[in-house]
Amino acid sequence: MFKSVFRGHPSGVAVITAQSEAGPVALTASSVSSVSVDPPLLIFSVSSLSSAAPAILNASTIVVHLLDADDIAIAQLGATSGVDRFADTTTWAPLPTGEPVYAGSRAWVRCAIVSRMDAGGSTVIAAHAVQAHIDRDVEAGTHGNALVYQNRSWHRLSEESQLG
Amino acid sequence: MFKSVFRGHPSGVAVITAQSEAGPVALTASSVSSVSVDPPLLIFSVSSLSSAAPAILNASTIVVHLLDADDIAIAQLGATSGVDRFADTTTWAPLPTGEPVYAGSRAWVRCAIVSRMDAGGSTVIAAHAVQAHIDRDVEAGTHGNALVYQNRSWHRLSEESQLG
Repeated sequence: MFKSVFRGHPSGVAVITAQSEAGPVALTASSVSSVSVDPPLLIFSVSSLSSAAPAILNASTIVVHLLDADDIAIAQLGATSGVDRFADTTTWAPLPTGEPVYAGSRAWVRCAIVSRMDAGGSTVIAAHAVQAHIDRDVEAGTHGNALVYQNRSWHRLSEESQLG
Repeated sequence: MFKSVFRGHPSGVAVITAQSEAGPVALTASSVSSVSVDPPLLIFSVSSLSSAAPAILNASTIVVHLLDADDIAIAQLGATSGVDRFADTTTWAPLPTGEPVYAGSRAWVRCAIVSRMDAGGSTVIAAHAVQAHIDRDVEAGTHGNALVYQNRSWHRLSEESQLG
């Protein structure tokens, strides 16, 4: 019943990357949320079932890519298990600080992990933004081509989806 | 810049209620996310700027209402400051356990708070679902009239918003 309740609950889509001793890792997350502006903090959860979980949980810094509908290939890459998410070296590059960044995402934020909280089979992470880049800014009052995940489907916000 | 990045990031919409010594409280949250199915756990964040924050943070149990586009009045009520969110007694009733439940929301989950983590001006809460009710189930493969908040606007998912 808990699964049925949350099947209907939509979310934005992010891909989180980190550099580890074994190389770069990535995972797609639907739990990213801004919780504080001053200091700039965001949270997300990482399931222990994700292959990238150990590297993300051990990292001191990560990059959170905030995706729009033009980034669906990045979202699908981070959500597909058993693939090398960095095989195509034309799609990403490391920052000078080492973390991998996928090219072309709407925006990304480099963060320092500041807190961790166990929650069942997941860990909730709070991270402090230290650097940000916006490829496609969303003007006030516009929908900005936003990407939404709900019930195993992808949606795109538009004027037609707007209420009122 | 952090605010600009997150302005474009969409979210689902929930209203969280609790009973306190001073009466029922409610707030609208865009941070609700399921983090574990076994045990059934969800997380959300509460800003210290919210008038309902002290009561929610002190509560041992809460109700999380997961809203769809038919519930926009409940979402707006929980997001409007300076109003009595329980003035109209025809729109809500207390559970036998005391927590207020708004009538007609898509689904609600009664939870016991299990963990709290400070994150800047907010507190991240992990809560264990102990009771659930679904008014409008979302079948697999359907959009279920989902409500999305993005850039200060409300959106409704539909066949037209679906990609692919």
